[in-house]
Amino acid sequence: MSGSTLVTNIGELVTNDPSLGDGPLGLRRHAAVVIDNGRVAWIGDARTAPAADTVLDADGRAALPGFVDSHAHLVFAGDRAAEFGARMAGEAYTGGGIRTTVAATRAAGDDELRANVARLRGEALRQGTTTIEIKSGYGLSVADEARSLRIAREFTDETTFLGAHVVPAGRDPDDYVAEVCGEMLGACTPYAKWVDVFCERGAFDGEQSRAVLEAGRAAGLGLRVHANQLDEGPGVRLAVELGAASADHCTHLSDSDVAALAGGDTVATLLPGAEFSTRSPYPDARRLLDAGATVALATDCNPGSSYTSSMPFCVALAVREMRMTPAEALWAATVGGARALRRDDVGVLRVGARADLLLLDAPSYLHLAYRPGVPLVSTVLLNGVPL
Amino acid sequence: MSGSTLVTNIGELVTNDPSLGDGPLGLRRHAAVVIDNGRVAWIGDARTAPAADTVLDADGRAALPGFVDSHAHLVFAGDRAAEFGARMAGEAYTGGGIRTTVAATRAAGDDELRANVARLRGEALRQGTTTIEIKSGYGLSVADEARSLRIAREFTDETTFLGAHVVPAGRDPDDYVAEVCGEMLGACTPYAKWVDVFCERGAFDGEQSRAVLEAGRAAGLGLRVHANQLDEGPGVRLAVELGAASADHCTHLSDSDVAALAGGDTVATLLPGAEFSTRSPYPDARRLLDAGATVALATDCNPGSSYTSSMPFCVALAVREMRMTPAEALWAATVGGARALRRDDVGVLRVGARADLLLLDAPSYLHLAYRPGVPLVSTVLLNGVPL
Repeated sequence: MSGSTLVTNIGELVTNDPSLGDGPLGLRRHAAVVIDNGRVAWIGDARTAPAADTVLDADGRAALPGFVDSHAHLVFAGDRAAEFGARMAGEAYTGGGIRTTVAATRAAGDDELRANVARLRGEALRQGTTTIEIKSGYGLSVADEARSLRIAREFTDETTFLGAHVVPAGRDPDDYVAEVCGEMLGACTPYAKWVDVFCERGAFDGEQSRAVLEAGRAAGLGLRVHANQLDEGPGVRLAVELGAASADHCTHLSDSDVAALAGGDTVATLLPGAEFSTRSPYPDARRLLDAGATVALATDCNPGSSYTSSMPFCVALAVREMRMTPAEALWAATVGGARALRRDDVGVLRVGARADLLLLDAPSYLHLAYRPGVPLVSTVLLNGVPL
Repeated sequence: MSGSTLVTNIGELVTNDPSLGDGPLGLRRHAAVVIDNGRVAWIGDARTAPAADTVLDADGRAALPGFVDSHAHLVFAGDRAAEFGARMAGEAYTGGGIRTTVAATRAAGDDELRANVARLRGEALRQGTTTIEIKSGYGLSVADEARSLRIAREFTDETTFLGAHVVPAGRDPDDYVAEVCGEMLGACTPYAKWVDVFCERGAFDGEQSRAVLEAGRAAGLGLRVHANQLDEGPGVRLAVELGAASADHCTHLSDSDVAALAGGDTVATLLPGAEFSTRSPYPDARRLLDAGATVALATDCNPGSSYTSSMPFCVALAVREMRMTPAEALWAATVGGARALRRDDVGVLRVGARADLLLLDAPSYLHLAYRPGVPLVSTVLLNGVPL
């Protein structure tokens, strides 16, 4: 689309900028947005909107910023439907199934991996995810991690090196950590913005995790941590101490973990799809919010523990199961995700922000939680361009 | 579409006919289906499929019968997003908000009501619901109930008179029951196949419910009951005693309720969307299944307690929250719903059945539970015709 676009007759506009409207969501009624060169150029009352080359009539529907999914594992082959079925019949989730996906991913050709990312990226985009982070972590060799990130980079700038996802079968843990921090990091850095580590029993302990994060930081990568999913552990405190952008999962938190998150610059990224699909207790979002921590929501999309790509589903779960208000959940799925990626150009609609804008088949963002499971995202503008 | 259609290269076909494949779902691999005149004309191996006028290549995807949603309240005006928000902030669900929708529905014109049904029917159809039951129950006057059913009948043959949804404000309960059983029933019978009653504290007691059901039966209608949603009560036993096709909700059951359902011809229709959206404990599906009862899943789509139109969402909830296996949940959402409507031409794919067939963007029906919230239904054939 060339030229400017006017999105008008927006019944309810979520800007996420309190200076532009009511409350933390910066809500406006009867609004319009002008888009030019992929950016928001004007926001205001529909009756006073300037002319534009193209007009999109929202017909009273709600408009909001695109979702920012800051945690997704999309580079893999195969699925684990059988493991899912066994878990639903009562088996516990331990993370051990990751190795099944590693074997399938290593065996797949580049085109197969690329096609799978494209399928899931497209699926997420149609559901309103306009910014997505994509991790490696199913290669676990120098060559397979590097190609995972090279393929991920074809789809997003928010790529994360997760060589430290799990110790691959047959490898000595300390040797493997040394490889992750050395040759593997070197091969992956050209394609990665972030480094991440699964700091968890059965994966990497506090000292191993620290080594991986410090090596990644020395290589110029930003930091993220899979922390406290299965147990209280050192992950959250390590993330805050090292100034990681995000500590993800946060399912089992001590009081000192909560205090650290509330006092630091690390976002607590909650992934309720994982608790849904592993039949586990949900994180206590209220405890985090009430303490003053910044909370994000993300899908954790992966073939083992959370094979959803749906941010609206995560919003509905956050309200039902984690007692977030619909406004808090929407904020966490948009601005919260942007903060977890240290971005201020997405997750908001203000002049100069990226024109990632959704229209819902509904009069209010409330319907994302009120109408669970229903695909309400009817129009997606990515950089101002309709899908 | 005129002439016959061959749907071929189906990676996994759910027939729901054990004589056609493996297990209760009658699963076949590498299958094909021929459709003629809106009916299934042939099912077999893709390599031996006969020719047809049109070919639809499933490309290895899963195919299954369309969902049968046997419980939906689609004739209404307005929404209750604010009530939903208050409930998520801690207020209890009592059913009292029904009167809000009654006022909005009475105030609406026919075209507004019709447009709302069309919107929700279309939304459900795109998500794979090929058979839907639609109730009245937001009119609660002779004229408003009759027009609700007249409009519902424009969309489905499975229409249900629910004048006994709640006693309208300002009416004496016994007087109102007498009207429901008399003039209102007479005005509604031309448009209704079923009669239903909300047998619950705050709505209608056992004797009032019996009166409504017996009057409906005398007028030639089949019987359904809203039973045991908020409390143990007489609803389930009354439904079984009177030979109702379905007892819906079944959230609070005594041992004798379970035994009655297991021993009778009444289907236990579970509506987990209502428990999700009222933050209530889920029905114990395992207890019912283990006792030998027939279980159906339906959406309860309505603007108060369950504003989802998504049968896939209900399948995912049934597996996560009610410990149904993915196979049991799919069966309940297809054949189960058909049994709850006393239909044998839908919910199954066998020669002679209605050609209501879905293709998923997935290799197996398992993905409906494994990939919660993701709109996986990619193709819908209704009476053999693609949407």
